[in-house]
Amino acid sequence: MNTGLPIGIFDSGVGGLTVYRALHEHLPNERFVYLGDTARVPYGTKSLRTVERYAVENAQFLATHGIKLLVVACNTASALALPAIREALSIDVVGVIGPGARAAVATSKGKRIGVIATESTVQSGAYATAIGKADASATVTERACPLFVPLAEEGWANDEVARTVAETYLKDLRSTIDTLVLGCTHYPILKTVIQQTVGPQVELIDSGEATAREVTLLLTEKGLARNTSETSAHERQLCDDLDHFYVTDAAQRFAHVAERFLGSKPARLEAVEVWGHDELRAKN
Amino acid sequence: MNTGLPIGIFDSGVGGLTVYRALHEHLPNERFVYLGDTARVPYGTKSLRTVERYAVENAQFLATHGIKLLVVACNTASALALPAIREALSIDVVGVIGPGARAAVATSKGKRIGVIATESTVQSGAYATAIGKADASATVTERACPLFVPLAEEGWANDEVARTVAETYLKDLRSTIDTLVLGCTHYPILKTVIQQTVGPQVELIDSGEATAREVTLLLTEKGLARNTSETSAHERQLCDDLDHFYVTDAAQRFAHVAERFLGSKPARLEAVEVWGHDELRAKN
Repeated sequence: MNTGLPIGIFDSGVGGLTVYRALHEHLPNERFVYLGDTARVPYGTKSLRTVERYAVENAQFLATHGIKLLVVACNTASALALPAIREALSIDVVGVIGPGARAAVATSKGKRIGVIATESTVQSGAYATAIGKADASATVTERACPLFVPLAEEGWANDEVARTVAETYLKDLRSTIDTLVLGCTHYPILKTVIQQTVGPQVELIDSGEATAREVTLLLTEKGLARNTSETSAHERQLCDDLDHFYVTDAAQRFAHVAERFLGSKPARLEAVEVWGHDELRAKN
Repeated sequence: MNTGLPIGIFDSGVGGLTVYRALHEHLPNERFVYLGDTARVPYGTKSLRTVERYAVENAQFLATHGIKLLVVACNTASALALPAIREALSIDVVGVIGPGARAAVATSKGKRIGVIATESTVQSGAYATAIGKADASATVTERACPLFVPLAEEGWANDEVARTVAETYLKDLRSTIDTLVLGCTHYPILKTVIQQTVGPQVELIDSGEATAREVTLLLTEKGLARNTSETSAHERQLCDDLDHFYVTDAAQRFAHVAERFLGSKPARLEAVEVWGHDELRAKN
């Protein structure tokens, strides 16, 4: 395996950029190629079969572009489609559910763990299963918070609307949990208001952060880490031109929301098609 | 043309059911076939090219099932894709923008018209163009309200969150308009809170209602109305088994939200694929 290859990341849209940011911070020597499936976003209200199909198409698109490892940044795709993706690819595939669940168990003192996520992720029970595997004694309370995604994309992370929505979803969790997994890539954007709502005694777990830490270990274990002699001398910026971003629709809107999420617009951003291999691939 | 054929209706998802309800009320003798593109919903944040492609695929699916007229219930698809759909089909195609714009001009006394819609509909300028055609002296203020769709689907139409969101989007419209077009099929679900926010002096226009009235006239004009002798004697219920509903994903979720929108679940509901004609059509 060529250690100089980039790490692939895909998400249903822009949310996975929070995972990209965490990976970039933990692995400044690595290069990344990111795919946001903005033509079919969101996944969180869609069925197992449809999410599997979209996820495998995304994974295959990135695999044909040459990557050494795939990170499935989307919680819904990680919850529903990891087996199908692993079957389709010959490289290592890391989802965000396992790392998030393990980090929650490691952090939680009372083993009373809450998980907030999309409808499909909650229905899959993937977090409860993964937390149970890490510690069978933990109690898990899951809650779907569908309005958090449009709130984050609208840029209303810290205003009254966000506080009212968070209060409605989370008020009864305050006294029942000591740790809360942010089980959707958009939710770290709302971290401040979520923390204020559940109170300072509840530890928040960012699955993207936890995934970045596990990916760092995995690269070393498997001898896949980029050789520092391959790394150029200049300091790596988020979204610099060594990282390549693809979207399946509306690149301009993606760039706009990316700026809100990361503080900078992707330097290399391209619109592509990832489905229907007999059809024209590139569209601009 | 066989006047006994059903009227086709498509929407990006469940929102078009408000248009179906209006059509059903105005045309109790007619039968309907409805397609909700739930695998690719929402359209309101997607590009012209992608919306055109999805809309034409939906229209072709319904056309091959035998319909006498197509109603494009989705405002975004009506705003962006009507020419492409008309080119692909040989039957009459009615969108919701023209009827909504004409109803607004007919209702507005001071010709100060507001339009609330999705990002893509607002960006297209389709309502402003249609209103300008009906009355060049009218002033038009357009506003994207992306959070209204997930609010309606979450069933939070009348609570504090809805009031806070409506206040944020609409407070400065209160004094500048006398008529407000609900330019997205989900918005009639939030009618009460929208009316309270803009005040009783502002007339609300439901594009679905306006479309149902124009479709009624069109059927008579073109001799397409169903012959009453073809109509069965029993009183037609919403979603009864004479109306057929298709979705491209997650039929169960659609049925659940449909019940919230219409008060009853579709009796005949099927999941189908409308893209990739070489692929398997039916999925369940």
